[in-house]
Amino acid sequence: MQESGAGGSVGIVVPQVVDIDVPLILDCGRLLRRHQLIVETYGQLNAARSNAVLICHALSGDHHAAGYHGDERKPGWWDNCIGPGKPIDTNRFYVVSLNNLGGCRGSTGPNTVDPETGRVWGPDFPLLTVRDWVRSQSLLATKLGIQQWAAVIGGSLGGMQVMQWAIDLPTRVRHAVVIASAPQISAQNIAFNEIARQAILSDPDFHGGRYYEHGVVPGRGLRLARMLGHITYLSDAAMRAKFGNDLKAPQPSFNFDVEFEVESYLRYQGESFVDRFDANTYLLMTKALDYFDPARDYDDSLVAAFRQAQARFLVIAFSSDWRFSPARSREIVKALVDAGRPVSYALIDSSLGHDDFLMPLPDYHLMLRHYLSRVADEVGA
Amino acid sequence: MQESGAGGSVGIVVPQVVDIDVPLILDCGRLLRRHQLIVETYGQLNAARSNAVLICHALSGDHHAAGYHGDERKPGWWDNCIGPGKPIDTNRFYVVSLNNLGGCRGSTGPNTVDPETGRVWGPDFPLLTVRDWVRSQSLLATKLGIQQWAAVIGGSLGGMQVMQWAIDLPTRVRHAVVIASAPQISAQNIAFNEIARQAILSDPDFHGGRYYEHGVVPGRGLRLARMLGHITYLSDAAMRAKFGNDLKAPQPSFNFDVEFEVESYLRYQGESFVDRFDANTYLLMTKALDYFDPARDYDDSLVAAFRQAQARFLVIAFSSDWRFSPARSREIVKALVDAGRPVSYALIDSSLGHDDFLMPLPDYHLMLRHYLSRVADEVGA
Repeated sequence: MQESGAGGSVGIVVPQVVDIDVPLILDCGRLLRRHQLIVETYGQLNAARSNAVLICHALSGDHHAAGYHGDERKPGWWDNCIGPGKPIDTNRFYVVSLNNLGGCRGSTGPNTVDPETGRVWGPDFPLLTVRDWVRSQSLLATKLGIQQWAAVIGGSLGGMQVMQWAIDLPTRVRHAVVIASAPQISAQNIAFNEIARQAILSDPDFHGGRYYEHGVVPGRGLRLARMLGHITYLSDAAMRAKFGNDLKAPQPSFNFDVEFEVESYLRYQGESFVDRFDANTYLLMTKALDYFDPARDYDDSLVAAFRQAQARFLVIAFSSDWRFSPARSREIVKALVDAGRPVSYALIDSSLGHDDFLMPLPDYHLMLRHYLSRVADEVGA
Repeated sequence: MQESGAGGSVGIVVPQVVDIDVPLILDCGRLLRRHQLIVETYGQLNAARSNAVLICHALSGDHHAAGYHGDERKPGWWDNCIGPGKPIDTNRFYVVSLNNLGGCRGSTGPNTVDPETGRVWGPDFPLLTVRDWVRSQSLLATKLGIQQWAAVIGGSLGGMQVMQWAIDLPTRVRHAVVIASAPQISAQNIAFNEIARQAILSDPDFHGGRYYEHGVVPGRGLRLARMLGHITYLSDAAMRAKFGNDLKAPQPSFNFDVEFEVESYLRYQGESFVDRFDANTYLLMTKALDYFDPARDYDDSLVAAFRQAQARFLVIAFSSDWRFSPARSREIVKALVDAGRPVSYALIDSSLGHDDFLMPLPDYHLMLRHYLSRVADEVGA
């Protein structure tokens, strides 16, 4: 048996921009006449067009999930899992990864120009829901000639897109892989999101979302939002193990310089995020998280929602995850069972926290590898 | 048996300012020639001066622990626990409650005038440690004619002062009551504190701590810091029970107005805090938390530190507290046991989270009532 983490690289990848020229009616009631999605694909679509896998990204993710861009030394964000011989095996699957609508990495979003006004969208860009993303992704699938995904896979906010796909477009999803996710976020999750939003909205450089026109970015707010996010991505124990909580020096410095390792980690994470992410997109992503509630359309019954689905489910949770705890995954599993849907559930023993869904934990990757290998057999990949 | 929560009010109280004219050498190496502490007392000091109890406040607390000020409708922050016939019974004890040095409610602190310069201290006010507070409180005790406290009592950061008292001034503490506290804060706690500090320090209205001179306050930063604190004071389950996580309206509003109850709670908490608290004091308090580590002076051995103590200990933790979890209280208890100190430990079944230490939970108040009643007997109160 191949060891977890083994496998090759998809190598250099070149993203492509796909023009979706079908009008899209959004949940907010507004209409997007057309939009663009930036996409990467890995592996080959087979003749039967049956081996396509969709990767749905989380809060700060993007289309660059695997391989290398020419000018970057770091591979895509899920490169440890996607590639030839890897759990999401590009020798067998045709993997599609996109930057969601409203993103800031090349798809139509707040930092792009509204063709109808010739002005950067900024705060005029509509707030979106997970349902809107699924609609946009389904138009992409059609454009790529994919009638049914062999699997739709995502972690965290990505897992919410997976569930929504299975509910809204039952015939188009064969397998739904929901990782480190939740059927609806908790009041505590909303609280974290709200503070992140307030940090951005109250930054004087935010300028009501029109900061592009002022030649600034609301860096203070975005930095704080990201630092806060990082607290929720790691477990208390992982933070202790990773950074300790002893002073770096023998005695306190009695000023506000960095004195503990965790402070320098957070400051670095915050700082580097400002260089690569857009504040309006961050606001939009947190709102999509808050709004996610597939049960709402079914009299608040998640079971009724899942009765629409036809996919088989794999639900994976991590023991040390306190942002979307295993208890939340069990809520998903319970509703699926009650809805009569076939579901496998794996609780992975882990230490890092929510971030573990991005890590090459052997048990986790083995589970994905075995499950997806059977999916590949099933679709003749 | 008297029901928990029963008992009367200490009525109208008038704070007094006590001038401490003994020089105080601080841990940072600086010297305060004199300082003032604002103090409230409840009950009567007995002839033997044996019935005095010190209340140590937490991060945002102050001297006004019980009773009413003439112009306020709300009583002091621990009024449910302090008063005639209450668990900290003012019919038997002489209770002393102060605003710590560096506070912002009347004691010498960043928002007061440095007599040597005639200027508001602001960022020139020294950063303090829990040890500094204990030194300052011991000067107050001497000034009040109290050689030994019948009990020193505090929750959270207040509990840290209690431990430091017992270690640094063993003969002056008869009983040490440590509630919802920790022997040192965790990397995650430091992370929360660091984000709160960065929110304040990066607020353009902070002006390097000299905002008083600019006629503004760093309200954005202080608001965010307080909102963040409130997340850690409540358990996930309590937030869910208290606020739910359903939209207030049938459908999303698709803007950044309040849509969930927890958002309006946090915004209100943040807003009202700005009106009553000083940002420089908040910074100082979080640093004192981060620095607390009584083991540091004893080769990182908490056991060795507690070997100095002569007090009897009562340690109380709350099952739903994730900021200072019961596991942290057990670390304290274990070190006390290993140090041969007499200790009682109570784990209170609770639901609210860290905030429970301020609540009149029957089991909690009964435990305090019985323990302190024996203390009163012991000191002839």
